[in-house]
Amino acid sequence: MVLNKVVLIGAGNVATHLGKALLKTGYDVLQVYSRTVASASVLAEKLKTSYVTSLEEVRCDADLYIVALKDAALQELVPQIVKGREEALFVHTAGSMPMQIWKGHALRYGVLYPMQTFSKQREVNWSEVPFFIEAESKIDLKVLKELAGKWTEKVYEATSEQRKYLHIAAVFACNFSNHMYALCDRLLCQHGIPFEVMLPLIDETARKVHEITPKEAQTGPAIRYDENVINRHLDMLKAEPTIQELYEKISKSIYNHDKL
Amino acid sequence: MVLNKVVLIGAGNVATHLGKALLKTGYDVLQVYSRTVASASVLAEKLKTSYVTSLEEVRCDADLYIVALKDAALQELVPQIVKGREEALFVHTAGSMPMQIWKGHALRYGVLYPMQTFSKQREVNWSEVPFFIEAESKIDLKVLKELAGKWTEKVYEATSEQRKYLHIAAVFACNFSNHMYALCDRLLCQHGIPFEVMLPLIDETARKVHEITPKEAQTGPAIRYDENVINRHLDMLKAEPTIQELYEKISKSIYNHDKL
Repeated sequence: MVLNKVVLIGAGNVATHLGKALLKTGYDVLQVYSRTVASASVLAEKLKTSYVTSLEEVRCDADLYIVALKDAALQELVPQIVKGREEALFVHTAGSMPMQIWKGHALRYGVLYPMQTFSKQREVNWSEVPFFIEAESKIDLKVLKELAGKWTEKVYEATSEQRKYLHIAAVFACNFSNHMYALCDRLLCQHGIPFEVMLPLIDETARKVHEITPKEAQTGPAIRYDENVINRHLDMLKAEPTIQELYEKISKSIYNHDKL
Repeated sequence: MVLNKVVLIGAGNVATHLGKALLKTGYDVLQVYSRTVASASVLAEKLKTSYVTSLEEVRCDADLYIVALKDAALQELVPQIVKGREEALFVHTAGSMPMQIWKGHALRYGVLYPMQTFSKQREVNWSEVPFFIEAESKIDLKVLKELAGKWTEKVYEATSEQRKYLHIAAVFACNFSNHMYALCDRLLCQHGIPFEVMLPLIDETARKVHEITPKEAQTGPAIRYDENVINRHLDMLKAEPTIQELYEKISKSIYNHDKL
């Protein structure tokens, strides 16, 4: 079974990057749906296709509907997305939503979860993006494997349960570590130091865990609970109570984690 | 002025890696001091030199004493380290200790702060390590610049005040982001998923901030405060109250930081 005609439901970062990847590998992106004209039109233009802002107007002749919406919208819109298009394959891209949201609505469905951090300003190197896939039928699992296989060698099957934990783990590894960079940037900025001096340290921190476990890689005042340093740092942060509280709680967590 | 004979005070990760670097660039590491035989002897053997475990036995004929001790020990031991060796140059490697700790004890002193995360299991690529230096006299500043300049092009002058902020910022960018990897590892491990699937995401998270600011790079449920996902995640973490609390507080911080 060959999929060729695709409709994208959603126009955020994931939809944008997947749309570009589909186009590059010869798929026909029939249409883009987004609730707002602003985002729908921007993505449609990038993909040289048309857009709609109402689900009733979504074309019914696609082979595959890729749904990249916020979780709440996804859950709510499933019936409308499927209605009148029951023959097609439906997949969502959200890490934390179970495949079964499609059950009772679509006949053929699955999940295509690219575990990566997508920003509109930055191109994606797909060969480095792991995809976690799941499908109701073996044949659609093969279809999804072939689709993701055009972009990367890192295609893994994962159950909804496993994907749920992959997603929460990714929140820590990516979203939360990026926020640590953001707080670092904020502190440097307040003292006129450019963030770029921090890049070698950020790179090395990421590189280390390719070779040793994060627990082995841990360094800094918290691991030895050096109260001299920690108290001085807490004092330096007293004008920023939120950051101060995070500093204290993360330091304690590091110290306790090391003893596990 | 040419420095050649060096004594290392301390035998932790920083002393170990600096010792190796000194040896490689032709310095004569006369001796290693550490409080315990265990760590002193291990490092002395690596550097093919001798060791002592009492400060009175430290040789007095070195040109340079590099002190890489915990902050509390450093502050306490300064007088003993200097006594009888007043002619030499004394530097410490700690980011958060002011240069003035040496004042009134040593005549020539400064700071040599390599801003990197050092683990014993991992070799250091010195060309990528920024050094922040400070010295009481212009001539010793030049001496330190030349020393660090043998290892890296990234040698910057920084005042004690700036270095204090560099250090706390580094705690966020390195120690705290590594702890986010550790919590990720823990969650994956509990569900039989290998940590290595996370490496492409970790690498991309670090790479992104070379091109866009951490604030621009932020993705994930917290940035849009997607309560559906966040509440599901908090529920998944209920058996781990410490991790649950961190999840909630960091998510709120991400959401609020975005509006700054």
